This record gives sequence, structure tokens and C-alpha cells, in this order.
Amino acid sequence: MPPWSDRRALDLLNITQPIVQAPMAGAQGVELAIAVSRAGGLGSLPCAMLTPAQVADQVAAFRAASSGPLNLNFFCHRPAAADAAREQAWRERLAPFYRELGIGPETPIPVSNRAPFDAAFCEVVEALQPDVVSFHFGLPAPDLLARVKASGARVLSSATTVDEARWLAQHGCDAIIAQGAEAGGHRGLFLGDEVCAQPGLLALLPRVAKAVDVPVIAAGAIADGRGMAAALQLGAAAVQVGTAYLFCPEAGISAPHRAALMAAGDNTALTNVFTGRPARGILNRAMRELGPISPLAPAFPLAGGALAPLRAAAEAQGSGDFSPLWAGQAVALARDTAHGLDAAALTQRLASEAHRWLRAQPGDVQ
Amino acid sequence: MPPWSDRRALDLLNITQPIVQAPMAGAQGVELAIAVSRAGGLGSLPCAMLTPAQVADQVAAFRAASSGPLNLNFFCHRPAAADAAREQAWRERLAPFYRELGIGPETPIPVSNRAPFDAAFCEVVEALQPDVVSFHFGLPAPDLLARVKASGARVLSSATTVDEARWLAQHGCDAIIAQGAEAGGHRGLFLGDEVCAQPGLLALLPRVAKAVDVPVIAAGAIADGRGMAAALQLGAAAVQVGTAYLFCPEAGISAPHRAALMAAGDNTALTNVFTGRPARGILNRAMRELGPISPLAPAFPLAGGALAPLRAAAEAQGSGDFSPLWAGQAVALARDTAHGLDAAALTQRLASEAHRWLRAQPGDVQ
Repeated sequence: MPPWSDRRALDLLNITQPIVQAPMAGAQGVELAIAVSRAGGLGSLPCAMLTPAQVADQVAAFRAASSGPLNLNFFCHRPAAADAAREQAWRERLAPFYRELGIGPETPIPVSNRAPFDAAFCEVVEALQPDVVSFHFGLPAPDLLARVKASGARVLSSATTVDEARWLAQHGCDAIIAQGAEAGGHRGLFLGDEVCAQPGLLALLPRVAKAVDVPVIAAGAIADGRGMAAALQLGAAAVQVGTAYLFCPEAGISAPHRAALMAAGDNTALTNVFTGRPARGILNRAMRELGPISPLAPAFPLAGGALAPLRAAAEAQGSGDFSPLWAGQAVALARDTAHGLDAAALTQRLASEAHRWLRAQPGDVQ
Repeated sequence: MPPWSDRRALDLLNITQPIVQAPMAGAQGVELAIAVSRAGGLGSLPCAMLTPAQVADQVAAFRAASSGPLNLNFFCHRPAAADAAREQAWRERLAPFYRELGIGPETPIPVSNRAPFDAAFCEVVEALQPDVVSFHFGLPAPDLLARVKASGARVLSSATTVDEARWLAQHGCDAIIAQGAEAGGHRGLFLGDEVCAQPGLLALLPRVAKAVDVPVIAAGAIADGRGMAAALQLGAAAVQVGTAYLFCPEAGISAPHRAALMAAGDNTALTNVFTGRPARGILNRAMRELGPISPLAPAFPLAGGALAPLRAAAEAQGSGDFSPLWAGQAVALARDTAHGLDAAALTQRLASEAHRWLRAQPGDVQ
């Protein structure tokens, strides 16, 4: 494989293939990051559902297995204020499902475990010195961001509009992830709350690439080498791939999630019922009957608490009716690409096929 | 400019540039179709808001000015049954706006003028023998479709999912328009009613191109030569361009629509408040305050009737608050591309820039 002619992201992130493994909280651990890293991409560890001590453990495990760079990913949402009335209304909305699944109304509800980036996490970053720190939902407070940058980490964050991309560049991001509406999981939006304003990647990417001077990483619907080549042609310096990696054995997802991925077609939607913030997943019963967007869902991340007992009870019966089945719109294409591959082989396949497409003549059939 | 290496759409549609001018009912007449046709693309006449006699007049005007092929576009929705209670509820919802704009509650409401393809339109097709007939919202009844095909016309229709693309191919379409969620105007969806299932073009196009044997025309967010090149690389045989042509002097849009196009960024959304079916336009007051998706809106196309007096009164004051401001998500990119160009020059620019991008090496800056 000849070298990549555009080295902006490769040099910035110290990787050999312009592929960022999307951090997917709740769906992966260190194994996926290691495998992608060893294949030349950027391995990412989602930290929003970990304690600082767990982050340290995972970083140690990663470094024992790979000498490549590592991306630690954090959420920087503002923690939701408790709102007893809203949470009560949400529980009442869920009560019929509790009854149906035989869960007592007084069943304890777990506290949400999605923590925003804070001083404790910042100390972990300073101590562990990851090569890259990526944020979702904007950036942390200026003092924390300054400490992250002073640690030597390259800083990434996601933009869902051109305005967000400009804001991130002005506030010190070293590269910007242009997240198209096709992407699975949570929207990165942070300047507004109009989910419907998020354009598809074809509309977003070229404009973000024009609007900012830093390298742009394309996210959303990149599920094969051909799509990766198209994103690079449209101005991306690298791509971020999530859904395709969920098919690999290194992903840590539930059996119902895996079954839904294997069957999915054009049936994803944005929903807020699982966490309180809009995220894309495969349509299931909870999304259809509660939303997909529900005005009753408590603020992020509190909506998830009252759903947890339903999810556990349904999954125990092999059902994904109440599970977040995160996936992007290109899930079926991702399935074709990733079929039977581990994460290292998938990384290599994406890179080599993108290479071929970038050198193909129009009309060639590959 | 060297010839296109992929001639599937060119040969099928008898055009020299793989560009279909999107038919935009209410926003264009014959002038736009003529200009695009003379530049080598496929000119399209939207017929859903015309009488058969008006269609005949426009075809005659087109043929007097261009020897190129012509596409007549029709809707094939099922006419909505009158629902007095629903229409009354819609009028009541609009009553505060009527009062604000000084419109009497008994002001006559125009009958919707979006007619589905029927025997009368079919006779026009048989008499005028257009080269191409395209449909939106599926296909007409089998006997009418057979007559259209027997007239010699190539038949196109839009798919918003892979399932719809397969259905259209099985039912006789000669080429399929893959309409990504980015596209402006009405969604073509016809097999289901879940608007949220429509993927972005990057997720839709490669899968449609794999799923059907007929040529695929990419629609949605194609607003410059680079995006056109990307669509061709992703398997499209041609592209359909709408929003960019709205900036040309040949488009027939209101002053408020033009002003909104000149100012638009990432502020489009899908709405049903103007017609009863979801369509993408620039967010305005009617969309924000009534929807953007309203459960009260009467079935297509009846919702538009009660809005018409509001639109007329607002436009008379130079306001687009109650006008459908149709545009796709790439409206800002389209503005950059189309700036100062007439439709022939825009067609030539798209074609020549796409050509250059298809021959560029990755990393080239143009």
C-alpha cells in the first residue's frame, strides 16, 4: 500500500492509517482500542462510564499491548439538576412496562453513571498523558481544557454544524470531528438544542473543511473503503468509524444488540428515551412506544435510570426491547464490510480499499 | 472536457452531462428546464400544480427553445379524503395568526392545487411523448404506468430507502433517484410513513447502487462539483440538483424565499405544516410555531389551503413567515457554487468541476 498523500491527521495523531475508532461508551472496552491501534488507527477509550481508577487500569492494559497513541474520550455535558417531578412523571410513563415485566414500582433505580469531565478526570489525564483527548458535547471549562492541552494531549471534539466547528476551532481544538446526522450514538451538539439542524455528512463535511484551518475527521456513514475514500475526497483528513467495529469480536455489546445489528436495514432513528439526549439507534419497542423523542424524558443522563430495570429484565429474556441499540445509518453496509473480521483486519480492509478507490478511475467496478 | 467514462445515465436519458435538474413544483417554470437542457443536462417540468393544458403549453415552449430531452414530473399520492373535523381543527390552530395578520376567519380557502397523476395527465403524456417521466411518492397504478412506458418515456422515481429502491426496480423504473435526507422539498417516501427512517445520501446511495441493476441518480446535498464527483464515485450514474438552481435567475421563487436562501446556514428542517407531507425547508416562523411536524396538519396536500391566506398576507409585507422556503441541507454550499451564475453556467460549472475532481489525486487542493 503506497503512503497516504494527505498526512495532516497522520502527523497530528501519530497514526499510520487515517482511521479513528469511535469511542463508544457502554459498547467497548480496551480490547477494541488495542486491536485498532495495532493495525495503525487511533484506538479510543470511552471514559464517561468509568471511574478515574478504571480509566487508569484500562490505559495500563492498553499500553501493555500497544505502543500506538491512545485517545481518551470524555463527555462534557453540564450535570443535570435533579428534578423530582420530572423523574416521577417519567416513572409513571414507564409504570405499565414495569407491570408487564413484573418489576415492582419500588425497585431501586441506579444512579446514572455518565460523568462529565471534571478535576478528577483531569488529574488522570495529567498523570497518564494520553496522546489524544477527545470530547463530546463541546469542550470542558477553559481552566480544565488548558490543563489538558498543557499535558501534551491533542484535543478533538465533535461538531454537528458549521457554527459548532468554528467555535471548536476558536477554542483550541487541534482537529474537529464533523459528525453527520448518519452517525450512531449521541449527537455531539452543544451550541443549540435543535436536533433537526444536524445535516448529513455530505452537506456538513465540505463546509466544515472550508470553515476551519485544523484537520477535519469525518464521522457518520463511513462503513466501507469506498465511503472512506469519498470522505477524504470531500476534504476530510481522516475518518471516524463506529458502527462497523461493533460487528467485531472485540466489541462488548449485549446479545440483543448484536442480533439487532445483524438484522438492521433502514430502521435507525434518533431517540432521547435512553439517556435524555438524542442519539441514533436501531428502532425498538422502547423507541416506538415512548418516543423516539419524548418530551417526558428527564435531562441527560437521568432518563436512563428508570429504564435500567426494564432493560435488565428484557435482556434476561433475550430481548432488546428496552436496550439502547446504538447504530449509525450505514449499519447494513457496515455489516457487509465487517463480516467475519476482527478489528485489526477491519481497519486494514478499510484502509486498503479506500486506497484503491482513491486511485480508481470513475466508472471502475471493484 | 473529456467524455464521461460512465455512460449509463447519459445513454438512457439522452443527455451529455450526468445532471438532472430537480423538478421543483411552485419554484420554477419552463425557463429553468430550457436553460439546463441547453447546457446538456436533463431539464424537468414539475406538473403537479399545472392543468393538463398548462403542461401542453409548457412542453411547447420548451420544444421551441431546446432540442434536448424533457422530463415531466408528476406526484402519485393518493388524493386525501376530505376530513371536515381535521380541517376545522387546523383552522382553529391557525386562527391566532389570522387575527394577527388581520385576515377574517371566513376568508375563502383555496382548494389545493397539487393533483396526482391520473388518466387526464396520462393522455397528455401519450400526446406529447416526453423523453422522460418522473414520479414522486411511488408510481401510478399499473395500467397508467404501462401506458406511460408504452408512450416511449423512460420512467424514474425516488427512493428514500433500499426497500423502496428495490420496489421501484421491480415495478419497472428505468432509473432510480436515491433521495438522501439532505434533499430539499418533499420526501419521496411511499412504502412507509416513518420519515426518520430516511438515511443521509452517504448511507443510502452505495446500498441502493448495490441493490438494483438500473442506473441510480443521487439526490440530496449535491451542490458543487466536488460533491457531484463523490456521488459518482459512490456508484451514482448521475446526480439530481435542486437547491443550487434556486439561486439562478431562471427560478421562479418569491422574494422572501430568495432572501431566506441568501441567508441560510444549518437551519433547514423537515416539516409537514405547509402541505401535510414532510418536506425540507428553511426554518421559519410557521415551522417553529406550528411544528415543524404537526399532528394537526391535514393530509397531503390539504394542509396548505388554510395557510394560503397567511402566506399571501405575509408575503405582501415582504415576509416569508408563512411561506414554504424549500431548500436542502447544502443550501450554503449551493449559494457559493451558484453565486452570480445562470442555470446554463451552473450546469457547466458542476460538470466541469466534477470532472476535475474525478481526475484529481487525493490531497490535491483545487
